[in-house]
Amino acid sequence: MTNQRNDRIEVLESDANPNVKRWRRLATDPRFVKKAGTTLLEGAHLAECYFHTGLPVTNLLVAQSANAEARHWVETYVRERGLRPRVVADRLWQTLSPVEHGVGIMLEVPVPKTEDVDFSHEDVLYLDGVQDAGNVGTLIRTAVAAGFRTIAGSPKTAGFYAPKVMRAGMGAHFGAKLIENCPIDVFAERYEGTILAADARGGEDLFAADDYASGPVCWILGAEGPGVSSEALAKTHRRFYIPIEEACESLNVGAAAAVCLFDVRRRRLARR
Amino acid sequence: MTNQRNDRIEVLESDANPNVKRWRRLATDPRFVKKAGTTLLEGAHLAECYFHTGLPVTNLLVAQSANAEARHWVETYVRERGLRPRVVADRLWQTLSPVEHGVGIMLEVPVPKTEDVDFSHEDVLYLDGVQDAGNVGTLIRTAVAAGFRTIAGSPKTAGFYAPKVMRAGMGAHFGAKLIENCPIDVFAERYEGTILAADARGGEDLFAADDYASGPVCWILGAEGPGVSSEALAKTHRRFYIPIEEACESLNVGAAAAVCLFDVRRRRLARR
Repeated sequence: MTNQRNDRIEVLESDANPNVKRWRRLATDPRFVKKAGTTLLEGAHLAECYFHTGLPVTNLLVAQSANAEARHWVETYVRERGLRPRVVADRLWQTLSPVEHGVGIMLEVPVPKTEDVDFSHEDVLYLDGVQDAGNVGTLIRTAVAAGFRTIAGSPKTAGFYAPKVMRAGMGAHFGAKLIENCPIDVFAERYEGTILAADARGGEDLFAADDYASGPVCWILGAEGPGVSSEALAKTHRRFYIPIEEACESLNVGAAAAVCLFDVRRRRLARR
Repeated sequence: MTNQRNDRIEVLESDANPNVKRWRRLATDPRFVKKAGTTLLEGAHLAECYFHTGLPVTNLLVAQSANAEARHWVETYVRERGLRPRVVADRLWQTLSPVEHGVGIMLEVPVPKTEDVDFSHEDVLYLDGVQDAGNVGTLIRTAVAAGFRTIAGSPKTAGFYAPKVMRAGMGAHFGAKLIENCPIDVFAERYEGTILAADARGGEDLFAADDYASGPVCWILGAEGPGVSSEALAKTHRRFYIPIEEACESLNVGAAAAVCLFDVRRRRLARR
């Protein structure tokens, strides 16, 4: 490992090390992220996205057997930010990383303060009780790609800054306004656009509907199984179903969101 | 556990039991699925979908601490198919199940023989090197929901019948024609429709394109990172990109497929 000061770099081997303990709790307990005020970003892609934001890094973690791509980013951070890498024994690394076969780099970074974001006239994706971390990260990524840069979540939705969510978001977090833990009635009271729900149980045919997206819209997506809650449906202005094939079939929440969010994008682009 | 013959049901506790050994290999080694000729279906939803196909069940597995939903399905299979449940100790169950907190039921079922399916005039989703089992299962599910009932995969794509793929497919497998291990040149030689590639690197704007879906189409989706291979692009008639927001953003393969497959569905429905 490159080291500007040329002294021997300590390899963290002990579970009892206070940093290791904190990183493990960040990796395994999503609620601890809020308490600690930091999270972990895994992998070269996230490191690269984060580097370009210019935001501060709390710790630079590197696996003892990190690969060349990870070492490149460690060197960049050491050179340009003056950070001292924390080398972690591979056995411990496996218990910290949200992926099984990662490249061997993580950043511990401060969780951005959720400012009092004014979302009243934004396009919003509202997640209603989506608990799976991978799904939530993918949904944030899909939303930002579709031009929905504000994502809100109900109290039962997985925390947006858990390491697994950050990982699945693949950098989309850094281009988004994220509002966690926001009950639907609080949201609806402040929102000035049209609230739309994706509901497999009925409503209007998404593709046949007249233009519903001339002003700001909020798409509500619910968890698989329960779908959008009755509380959220009560705040909904228009309810849509995606016209899928009949039979036993259904869509997972990530696919349903992609169809709904990009239907808005298609309609907006067609008007230009 | 209900048992019609009222004798004591043996609980499988040993790793050395030949059934347990086979189930573990099915759970952990996707290549073994082909050799064994069977796979595992986890959960009440898959059990229900499979039950309605009327197809044979090799073994009915139930966790020692299965929940009520699983017990319902065990009783149904015992009553209507005369199957004897194989009760598996919870410690072993954890090593067999593709999900962490399942209900405690699995079926071992024969893998359908891949007949010499005539796909020449079908709408097809072709997966080009998609290796992640969860992604492949979700893609099969999205395709069937969009009306693409034929799914083909390149030799580098994950096997369609691995337990994790079955689980993510949520029953869509049973309504699909699946063609594994099919090189793109073999596919293209026999295919009579239009071959389309989703390629983030360029091509036509998907939403602005003129009607490309009047006849049968095959959408090719590649793995994240590499994208569609040069071999597959060489067989492609039209190449499209999804007009996403600029910046660091991209779509995961499941979201990209949902947008592409439902774009065809929307265009077809609009013509009716």
